[in-house]
Amino acid sequence: MVVGLVETAVPAAKSTVSSAVKKPTTLSSDPIINVARGDPTIYEPYWKKMGDRCKVVIAGDEFMSYFYNAMNLCWFLLPELDNAIRTLHRVVGNAMVDDDKFIVVGNGSTQLFHALLYALSSPDMPEPINVVAAAPFYSVSIQLQPLQSYPEETKFLRSELYKWAGDANCYDRDEPYIEVVTSPNNPDGSIRGTVENREGGKAIHDVAYYWPQYAPITSKADHDAMLFTFSKATGHAGTRIGWAIVKDKVIAAKMVKFIEVSSIGVSREAQLRAAKVLGFIADDCRNPDVKGENFFEYGRRLMSERWGKLREVGMKSNGVFSLPKYPRDYCKFTGEYTDSNPAFAWLKSKEGLNCENLLRDESKIISRGGPSFGVDSTYTRVSMLSRDVEFELLLERLAAVKGTVNGN
Amino acid sequence: MVVGLVETAVPAAKSTVSSAVKKPTTLSSDPIINVARGDPTIYEPYWKKMGDRCKVVIAGDEFMSYFYNAMNLCWFLLPELDNAIRTLHRVVGNAMVDDDKFIVVGNGSTQLFHALLYALSSPDMPEPINVVAAAPFYSVSIQLQPLQSYPEETKFLRSELYKWAGDANCYDRDEPYIEVVTSPNNPDGSIRGTVENREGGKAIHDVAYYWPQYAPITSKADHDAMLFTFSKATGHAGTRIGWAIVKDKVIAAKMVKFIEVSSIGVSREAQLRAAKVLGFIADDCRNPDVKGENFFEYGRRLMSERWGKLREVGMKSNGVFSLPKYPRDYCKFTGEYTDSNPAFAWLKSKEGLNCENLLRDESKIISRGGPSFGVDSTYTRVSMLSRDVEFELLLERLAAVKGTVNGN
Repeated sequence: MVVGLVETAVPAAKSTVSSAVKKPTTLSSDPIINVARGDPTIYEPYWKKMGDRCKVVIAGDEFMSYFYNAMNLCWFLLPELDNAIRTLHRVVGNAMVDDDKFIVVGNGSTQLFHALLYALSSPDMPEPINVVAAAPFYSVSIQLQPLQSYPEETKFLRSELYKWAGDANCYDRDEPYIEVVTSPNNPDGSIRGTVENREGGKAIHDVAYYWPQYAPITSKADHDAMLFTFSKATGHAGTRIGWAIVKDKVIAAKMVKFIEVSSIGVSREAQLRAAKVLGFIADDCRNPDVKGENFFEYGRRLMSERWGKLREVGMKSNGVFSLPKYPRDYCKFTGEYTDSNPAFAWLKSKEGLNCENLLRDESKIISRGGPSFGVDSTYTRVSMLSRDVEFELLLERLAAVKGTVNGN
Repeated sequence: MVVGLVETAVPAAKSTVSSAVKKPTTLSSDPIINVARGDPTIYEPYWKKMGDRCKVVIAGDEFMSYFYNAMNLCWFLLPELDNAIRTLHRVVGNAMVDDDKFIVVGNGSTQLFHALLYALSSPDMPEPINVVAAAPFYSVSIQLQPLQSYPEETKFLRSELYKWAGDANCYDRDEPYIEVVTSPNNPDGSIRGTVENREGGKAIHDVAYYWPQYAPITSKADHDAMLFTFSKATGHAGTRIGWAIVKDKVIAAKMVKFIEVSSIGVSREAQLRAAKVLGFIADDCRNPDVKGENFFEYGRRLMSERWGKLREVGMKSNGVFSLPKYPRDYCKFTGEYTDSNPAFAWLKSKEGLNCENLLRDESKIISRGGPSFGVDSTYTRVSMLSRDVEFELLLERLAAVKGTVNGN
């Protein structure tokens, strides 16, 4: 099992995740590159440069109580974080955050996804509610085993409240359902709406990647229940903070109850840090005198450069693999027409080839194949958010793929 | 709904949790005192006094990655926290933490309880496994509604993996079971072992209160799966850090998987802070030159003083209510015979009286009645961990209870 950045050995039956930046290696030194997961370490240099401006200091006697947001429905939400979230969405223009919307904070958007499944289902229904998503759908590799994905998360506790019911495109039962919509989509970066639109249908909108570095901001997202996460917005994956923007008070209250019973709220320290960083970005974006790029300008430039390089490699691959094309669109945040630069590249190999195996066997690149996302094995997903050293090595390797080895 | 410290108004249908220290009030000003929950704010003055010695500083570019403990089974456990937990248990002598034991960190011990239920059950079993606990059993009031308790937590997601099966004393089915043992017990402070001891039976040992300020440390706890929590050990409830000490590698690995799928790990900021505070206490306890009391000496003195005052009030109550008696025992940590000073007082009123209603109607004290813990209504639970101002008011009120009003 290998989940390090660039591993030269493969310890058996042991978790070997690692975030250390190792010495750059070349193709000839034969290391494994793992880009199956979306660890957003790409933004580290930016935050290093910001230095003390985003530092948080917490004294020994702070945050002792369970309780601290007396008048809020989400009683464990730090008011500073509530404020920073709303301010940043207003500055970026990517989500409606009117005062009548409820913000629910969670231990990452993962916990909020579970909370929403709970809130949208009901113990009074005779059958578990069906959960669907249009393929290809979200799937995250942690420790190389496909532990996380919408199917996995839905099935995990064998709840009688809800059950995974597969690809939304194939769903034809006349039963209640929840559709999970990820837009921009993970893995393929497409902009999506619901596939099912029947009366009484419910939806969870995962808009984790709807930020200017990944996609043009064309309008304010305004769905019943939307999920965002600190990790994809700014790169702070270790902080475990996500937030939901919810229209209906009853749904928001059920989510709060879920998080109470699961973990009695969310670490105050993590919330304080998220508030600091999100507030910092919002201030920078609003300040015309800021020196250098703001966070989103930086992120968009970086992602755009990476996508340019990857497309170049793709074009030279003689059709061994290809990449999706995205329409340019007018981004209201930047005030110009911009490209989509998704957090993942969704590679498709020539027919008859297994793309995941191809990359693994020819180039020691660990990616995550189509079947994990509900589609065929000519597809595979590669993270675009790794550190520079790893990304450059990835390009070097991909450029050398010939499409001759293929353990199907 | 009232969950503030001392509330003078009762807003309708709204969560009104509050941690603010309000101006001391007297009986005549007619406020409600809520001691139904166990918010451990008693320790705030100690940590205030420690000032910068327990401060943590986190730079903007720290903890960006999901991954950081490469060689550990619990890949999201901060090595500093692992080290601080083991060191403190060795110093206090309250739990076996040999190197072959696994530490799993969670978003509070609540998440770890769920993780253990998952780890000890199996999708391959024909029926959900029975979960039992000897009454009176754990039950925590959050927002006054009994959202959390072992029965609630077990039933919450309607999992097909496990089901709540009631009081362990009455359990007579010849089926697999998990017994939850809390010792010292919440609510009644008793020292406990398993009630069921059949072959193949499994147990979860919640030892959250097995620290010198609450009970004599008579031996190192050494059960298969033990749960501790930062909130009860040091009073840092807002940090949401718990840990499990687990013997079996397979069980620990299943718990890690549960926490991955639930929340992709545990906030790094919270872990860093817990490591700092636990490490600080351990250092102080080991240093014979430390000025003043170490944390446990301070906590034990405070709890002992509070229990002394409460017993005095109880004795003067003419039998309207009584308190449990605990045997003195030799505490290996302090090196002397010490009393139990539980985090909750388990009040019993005269037969025929409903103790929770009695306190509410005569004295505007909100407590948590026996039925929430699986026993009769002559019992009620009162937190001993509130701030000084609230505790003094509680004593004043209890002293005035006559046992004449009682809405049964």
